[in-house]
Amino acid sequence: MARIYNFSAGPCTLPVEVLEQVSDQIVDYGNTGMSLIEMSHRSKMVDGVHCAALDLVREILNVPESHHVLFLGGGATMQFGMVPANLLAGGKSADYIHSGAWAKKAIADGKAFGDVNVIWDGKESSYMTLPDPAPGNLNVTPDAQYLHLTSNETIGGIQWKRFPDVKAPLVCDMSSDIFSRPIPMEKFGIIYAGAQKNLGPAGVALVIIRDDVLQQCSDDLPLYMNYKKHVDGNSMLNTPPVFQIWMIKLVLEWLKGKGGLEWAQEMAARRSQILYDMVDRHSEFYRCPVDRAVASPMNVVWRCATEELEAKLIKEATAAGLDGLKGHRSVGGCRASIYNAMPLEGAQALADFMNEFAQSNG
Amino acid sequence: MARIYNFSAGPCTLPVEVLEQVSDQIVDYGNTGMSLIEMSHRSKMVDGVHCAALDLVREILNVPESHHVLFLGGGATMQFGMVPANLLAGGKSADYIHSGAWAKKAIADGKAFGDVNVIWDGKESSYMTLPDPAPGNLNVTPDAQYLHLTSNETIGGIQWKRFPDVKAPLVCDMSSDIFSRPIPMEKFGIIYAGAQKNLGPAGVALVIIRDDVLQQCSDDLPLYMNYKKHVDGNSMLNTPPVFQIWMIKLVLEWLKGKGGLEWAQEMAARRSQILYDMVDRHSEFYRCPVDRAVASPMNVVWRCATEELEAKLIKEATAAGLDGLKGHRSVGGCRASIYNAMPLEGAQALADFMNEFAQSNG
Repeated sequence: MARIYNFSAGPCTLPVEVLEQVSDQIVDYGNTGMSLIEMSHRSKMVDGVHCAALDLVREILNVPESHHVLFLGGGATMQFGMVPANLLAGGKSADYIHSGAWAKKAIADGKAFGDVNVIWDGKESSYMTLPDPAPGNLNVTPDAQYLHLTSNETIGGIQWKRFPDVKAPLVCDMSSDIFSRPIPMEKFGIIYAGAQKNLGPAGVALVIIRDDVLQQCSDDLPLYMNYKKHVDGNSMLNTPPVFQIWMIKLVLEWLKGKGGLEWAQEMAARRSQILYDMVDRHSEFYRCPVDRAVASPMNVVWRCATEELEAKLIKEATAAGLDGLKGHRSVGGCRASIYNAMPLEGAQALADFMNEFAQSNG
Repeated sequence: MARIYNFSAGPCTLPVEVLEQVSDQIVDYGNTGMSLIEMSHRSKMVDGVHCAALDLVREILNVPESHHVLFLGGGATMQFGMVPANLLAGGKSADYIHSGAWAKKAIADGKAFGDVNVIWDGKESSYMTLPDPAPGNLNVTPDAQYLHLTSNETIGGIQWKRFPDVKAPLVCDMSSDIFSRPIPMEKFGIIYAGAQKNLGPAGVALVIIRDDVLQQCSDDLPLYMNYKKHVDGNSMLNTPPVFQIWMIKLVLEWLKGKGGLEWAQEMAARRSQILYDMVDRHSEFYRCPVDRAVASPMNVVWRCATEELEAKLIKEATAAGLDGLKGHRSVGGCRASIYNAMPLEGAQALADFMNEFAQSNG
């Protein structure tokens, strides 16, 4: 079948050029007579791909020497627990911002290890806005080990536009918007991100950890939970998820070829603008529930007047080759997730569809 | 290049028919206009593959209703810590058999959570043998929560031929021989196995847990460490490693088509016999260092008179299309890992090579 536009929130659309490379090379990698995923992870070939992927992360995100880069299994969910296991042992405390569904999970795991202060909670706005990050606006705890943020909430459709300036290092779940804009790396003690939005297939998390924060991590942990051991092993403490790391390398080569973060940021702004503009153009028919000052360029959410109309829109869009527009089951409505691999034409095709749908059903 | 014989210890050779299926389907899965790894993990398509893979595990291994089947990230290394985190909280104790390099890692993580009794240690034999599993022979601790075993040590090249009968449930790392023989499932409280030998590519672990053991697991754990939550979520607590699970489904379909565990067991016996026989035939030239009563059918290890001869053998074999024969760096020597996907012809080609090498260099 012809390729469709896939607006799923993650796993999500990947560059078709990368999928074609994998298809070409998965049986016989580089004329070796075997697949890369059949080779020992200690072989030169796998080590080369592994290091190239780590280097591309460092190069494209502009990660300074002060920070270590890791690929770990278990996804971002594993990091919800691994961060406090490493940094809160012995009753230490951390600040968390409760910005929505993903922040909530991070908070729950933080509480399993330490003293968690939720210093801002978006409940009153139904998690449709974020606090002002200006200095002094956040009521941080003086001895907090870190301040935890979720840079983009995929379900709510909101994003931090600027990151707070606080004394403690920021720890940030960037699963759904990493590699979509430049990051002021020096503010961050730990950045973690499940791969399955802008990086590659599900099954690996990217973790970036500042050396001074690493030095504060606990030593008294099981092997896989121990950041220091993973850093010592250059993410090869055990057999890594080689397939995902190979695909990350290919996706980042693709991104670099397109123009890196500047290109990604511009494209994200253009794609999302096309959709937000269409919602505004039919403001009698569509409604964007989020605070537009923090509206996400990755996940555009909107509502129709009734759930029946939303269901009709989603059904007709799917039939027209525009897939994955159903909002998360916890909030309903419509959602278009438009990560780096979504072509501008995909956003335009969806906007055209929304225009016609509003005219036909308004 | 023509396909070579790959004797790597894991990641290892996979069925070429499966790699070809992946190559055919990775761009457009089932005529949907997208890749399976681009689809939402909550979609019917991914859920269908996920459940089919779980069902195949249950069917082929003959897993009774009393046991739950899970796919988890982080590999077997993650399970070294997850098992005691779930079962030893609050100072409980467990028995461990120290049979080699992998058992050692499991023991270290056990000690991070509870009171670990190493009731047998193979150090005296340089980990070249195993204890007699006959009842009464193992000095088990009366209140141990479990007895931990490593069913096959890939580095040492030894395997439990029968499993002990003890009161406590067995917990077993079966990474390197699962799906190579029938398992007396009722003895096991937990079985875990990294996928990258007989199951698929690296990046996922299979975990099988008996319900009465699950009920004893701790609730006070971070989300990803919590077996109960993974069982409640049918291994979809978070986004699973979809690619690996898809490949496991394909590998298990292939195994089922070949004849399942009976076929695998017979082939493993034949492949390994070909190699052990060749070592014996040139007993003046080759030497098998392990106790032959527990010699592994998965990893055949042997030595030559000198390290120079071993290096020459490995180099010439590689040139002849017989790859991955270098023993683990911790023990040296030669090792042929011959899992389910290694054709009988591969073992025969290696034996022929060993025969000629002994004649030329003896």
